[in-house]
Amino acid sequence: MLDRTDPEAAIAAAARRCSNWGRWGPDDVLGTLNFLDEAKRREGAALIRRGVSFPLSQRFEADGPQKGWRRRTNPVHTMLDTGLDAERGTQGFPHGIGGADDVVFMPLQASTQWDGLGHIFDHGIAWNGRRAGDVVTSEGDQVTGIETAAGRIAGRGVLLDVGRVLGTDGELPDGFAITTEHLEETMAAQGSTAHVGRGDLLLVRTGRLARARREGWGDYAGGPAPGLSFTTVDWLHDTEIAAIATDTWGFEVRPNEFDDAFQPLHQVAIPHLGLFLGEMWDLDALAADCAADGVHEFWLTADPIPVTGAVGAPVAPVAVK
Amino acid sequence: MLDRTDPEAAIAAAARRCSNWGRWGPDDVLGTLNFLDEAKRREGAALIRRGVSFPLSQRFEADGPQKGWRRRTNPVHTMLDTGLDAERGTQGFPHGIGGADDVVFMPLQASTQWDGLGHIFDHGIAWNGRRAGDVVTSEGDQVTGIETAAGRIAGRGVLLDVGRVLGTDGELPDGFAITTEHLEETMAAQGSTAHVGRGDLLLVRTGRLARARREGWGDYAGGPAPGLSFTTVDWLHDTEIAAIATDTWGFEVRPNEFDDAFQPLHQVAIPHLGLFLGEMWDLDALAADCAADGVHEFWLTADPIPVTGAVGAPVAPVAVK
Amino acid sequence: MLDRTDPEAAIAAAARRCSNWGRWGPDDVLGTLNFLDEAKRREGAALIRRGVSFPLSQRFEADGPQKGWRRRTNPVHTMLDTGLDAERGTQGFPHGIGGADDVVFMPLQASTQWDGLGHIFDHGIAWNGRRAGDVVTSEGDQVTGIETAAGRIAGRGVLLDVGRVLGTDGELPDGFAITTEHLEETMAAQGSTAHVGRGDLLLVRTGRLARARREGWGDYAGGPAPGLSFTTVDWLHDTEIAAIATDTWGFEVRPNEFDDAFQPLHQVAIPHLGLFLGEMWDLDALAADCAADGVHEFWLTADPIPVTGAVGAPVAPVAVK
Amino acid sequence: MLDRTDPEAAIAAAARRCSNWGRWGPDDVLGTLNFLDEAKRREGAALIRRGVSFPLSQRFEADGPQKGWRRRTNPVHTMLDTGLDAERGTQGFPHGIGGADDVVFMPLQASTQWDGLGHIFDHGIAWNGRRAGDVVTSEGDQVTGIETAAGRIAGRGVLLDVGRVLGTDGELPDGFAITTEHLEETMAAQGSTAHVGRGDLLLVRTGRLARARREGWGDYAGGPAPGLSFTTVDWLHDTEIAAIATDTWGFEVRPNEFDDAFQPLHQVAIPHLGLFLGEMWDLDALAADCAADGVHEFWLTADPIPVTGAVGAPVAPVAVK
Repeated sequence: MLDRTDPEAAIAAAARRCSNWGRWGPDDVLGTLNFLDEAKRREGAALIRRGVSFPLSQRFEADGPQKGWRRRTNPVHTMLDTGLDAERGTQGFPHGIGGADDVVFMPLQASTQWDGLGHIFDHGIAWNGRRAGDVVTSEGDQVTGIETAAGRIAGRGVLLDVGRVLGTDGELPDGFAITTEHLEETMAAQGSTAHVGRGDLLLVRTGRLARARREGWGDYAGGPAPGLSFTTVDWLHDTEIAAIATDTWGFEVRPNEFDDAFQPLHQVAIPHLGLFLGEMWDLDALAADCAADGVHEFWLTADPIPVTGAVGAPVAPVAVK
Repeated sequence: MLDRTDPEAAIAAAARRCSNWGRWGPDDVLGTLNFLDEAKRREGAALIRRGVSFPLSQRFEADGPQKGWRRRTNPVHTMLDTGLDAERGTQGFPHGIGGADDVVFMPLQASTQWDGLGHIFDHGIAWNGRRAGDVVTSEGDQVTGIETAAGRIAGRGVLLDVGRVLGTDGELPDGFAITTEHLEETMAAQGSTAHVGRGDLLLVRTGRLARARREGWGDYAGGPAPGLSFTTVDWLHDTEIAAIATDTWGFEVRPNEFDDAFQPLHQVAIPHLGLFLGEMWDLDALAADCAADGVHEFWLTADPIPVTGAVGAPVAPVAVK
Repeated sequence: MLDRTDPEAAIAAAARRCSNWGRWGPDDVLGTLNFLDEAKRREGAALIRRGVSFPLSQRFEADGPQKGWRRRTNPVHTMLDTGLDAERGTQGFPHGIGGADDVVFMPLQASTQWDGLGHIFDHGIAWNGRRAGDVVTSEGDQVTGIETAAGRIAGRGVLLDVGRVLGTDGELPDGFAITTEHLEETMAAQGSTAHVGRGDLLLVRTGRLARARREGWGDYAGGPAPGLSFTTVDWLHDTEIAAIATDTWGFEVRPNEFDDAFQPLHQVAIPHLGLFLGEMWDLDALAADCAADGVHEFWLTADPIPVTGAVGAPVAPVAVK
Repeated sequence: MLDRTDPEAAIAAAARRCSNWGRWGPDDVLGTLNFLDEAKRREGAALIRRGVSFPLSQRFEADGPQKGWRRRTNPVHTMLDTGLDAERGTQGFPHGIGGADDVVFMPLQASTQWDGLGHIFDHGIAWNGRRAGDVVTSEGDQVTGIETAAGRIAGRGVLLDVGRVLGTDGELPDGFAITTEHLEETMAAQGSTAHVGRGDLLLVRTGRLARARREGWGDYAGGPAPGLSFTTVDWLHDTEIAAIATDTWGFEVRPNEFDDAFQPLHQVAIPHLGLFLGEMWDLDALAADCAADGVHEFWLTADPIPVTGAVGAPVAPVAVK
């Protein structure tokens, strides 16, 4: 049982139990992505049976969920040239060609994203035991920038639709802490394709996004939500998954299970496990298909946009069954 | 033979010969992506034999090739929080957790990208015969925004390494117009895995990026380059490929083959064929592997980041063999 | 009396009565700023008696009032370098020098601002009778860009503190339409220094910002507010003021005085009068001083930041008494 | 004489001689702006004789001089709405009103600007002896943010047109170090209105911008330039000016007078004197007028845009004679 009153001790103990520091050498920048190897990719490829693809990204737009917390705004997309300009003939191009072009300003974690290994620190220490300030300066993440993960995140994906198995109408309520037991119960209910192991890319659906889609964003970004319990940290470590992603803003349950803590599971998972966390993924269409055909495993590609030095990055994941 | 003096007539004639308007109904927003079906995805999946993945994206960073042409700058990535702040303990979080976070400002075509169907117009007309100003306003592409392509671009990829087959030390010189004959010669040289047909995602390597990597960006963005000849437009149409991407800034040869024209192949390929064009892809590592094992086909995923209303978008393509 | 049901007729009639089109020739880009001449500047300079200066700008920051209406967000200010980096010694500079540097992304009308003459159109027509699309394209305002006003807005300022004279505790309620009679009543109450005439820079205080400062932003940006009545349009025209600014988001009363209209006074004032409108100014400290010493006129400098082609611009106005 | 080989010792000695730390108490955030008092403003106001105003700002635009050094790019101005959209009638507004609106992304020191007191540090120490990291974090300048200077910079301006007095055709060559003797020679040549003293806002014209205007930007931003000699540091301190601005990118001479140093005069002037430095001002029109009428003093207003926490800020200075 968690001692609600002492997050710092619980975090320290979990970090000791679950640390992967040094596991892949002192220079490692990939953390749990090391678990995803070529054999796993071959295993994933064999799961493409029908050729149906599922985009798992939310849109990047001004009407998104962000409310400006710590300057995390929604993307602002503006045009450099438009069809109206082209029709008007003022673009200065010859013989009838016209064009449109555009720019975006956005926090890198404004919408569907990966947290990089430089995103979270524990007592000033980053992944693999490095000093936080040696890793991420104002010039960005000098060591574990998201570009170092390029080409890695392609393999077997598996969906645990906890919302559908344990929720009401497919949705868990805010504050629902998904425990290891809940994960195992979901695997059991979903059947043989739902096993989770070394090198897998695990997707956990809570139903939170479905609710936001129905009721409006509300506090989707930064408010209460279902999510992983702090107590799953050992399971996350022991299963040796390569990465995990959810349909929520913050991956872990909110409010969390301590009286006074902020994203305590992040504090262990990123700097100590070296685990890649995906957030704000849209799992609903994929989940509906998995429920329909009973197959919860698939090929998954989810390479982050390699913004040099980024501590997180937009991604347009695609599952294929 | 092209009449160098009359691009407008050549473009109009090519548009008449190669138009796909109406082919997929009046409401179509996908153009040639319609050629990429589930059978093609199954065919592509079978090409994952070794489980080796190749990221095909250049980095997104301030040290990129852009020079500000029409306000296309390089990405500017800045931090909202850093490891230095976390170490200093000024972030206001409890019990030792610290974080880094970041934002980016970038033209959507600053680095590795897809051109959307709203990117180029011919005499004020966009893909499928729509008025340009009915499609792309200051609020973005209201019809063919890049988000409409979500989940589509996953299937069989094939590399034609024209640089390696026809160039010197793997590189074509600037101004080299790759004709249909060059493409066929490359296919013949590369062997049986290099066939190109309906629904394929075609990658054409010129070697231009390899040169920029060696010599510095120079005029990589917007200057002279090898690329597709205007005369390939019929081949691009008739092969029924789903999309094409190159390792150059502008896909087609520059300077082009007319005395006075601007990107004339774009002017037909995007609004009339509805062809998706990828630019600034990094094909070098993949190409080296293909040369080594003689296999030029692979699984390719290249979903654009779904910025709502965008006329182009960053992409982190991944090939898997 | 206004016919609440027919804004279009009222606007058309006001435009006919108050048009300044052609008054300063067909090429004019300055509108009412033409009224502010050197004599007026000399008159203004004589009002600097004590040497006390009053900054009239709100801050530009993420905690501002904007809520994203039509993509108008609050400014996002991020650092390129910080003191933490300098202390760490990682900046690469020699012999102990360190630096901090920063960037901003902001709508040009996010905080204290001038509306430029290209900001509002009436039935597709801009100031001085030009077609809107001939003036403002995706490349910005090609004719009346805010940079054309550089160096003009320096002269005699006069404050009409309608909030203090007619409001409760210095504040008018939302929806309070300030009529010509209210303006005259305020002038009479304030005494001899409050006269308004040709070339003056008129500041009208409603107290709306004071309320936002006390109660939180709420709907300060885009919600109900006191402001100028549509019926003041003739007075605004006939007094020949050079510009007018208020402490509200939208200058005119909101909701306005028609059943269904959007900023109808803007629709006449900008394209037909060529009047420069200042919004979101902070007049409270200046107003307190004017109330204390009974002097409501002063020197005012309020040059917009000359962003080339801008239709509005940030300004840091300063009044000196 | 300077020892070219030991900048660190020269800087330390200058800092000892010229430090203003503690002069205005331990909490001071204004530095030399404290010298500019109400009497000085009255003195400045009396200099408005003709009512002629001179804008001293360069434009803020994509065609500016920045080349991306340390991510300092030129401003990118994009439109949220245009006249073309308004003409098309797609903006969703009633009864004929249409609008244009815009955003900007820019480094705060991209064009005409003030350096704030948090811009430069000496061995990790900021103005008034504070630790750099206690002042400027990723959240901005928490102590001396440019907004703290609001309303201060209005008073007597004086121009020393060193370019005209000592240069060829009004321009000094790159690398010309303006010494105290040069400043005094210029004052003597310009006559009685050119005296400089406590609380003045000093403008020094080198002619560098005039050359860039004629020949193109070249290395205007960050390259060689005429500018203040390191040896003027005592004069800058002893005259008790409130601020100084030049028509160059970097205020001080470049290359500087040491074998290996970076902006050494900054390293003393900002953290030790607390001196406000203006850069990239356009002094040419004002200088021509001063040369014509022989009057080199004037009223000057130059309030920075109060971006909260900024270490530098855009300004649209206006001189009035």
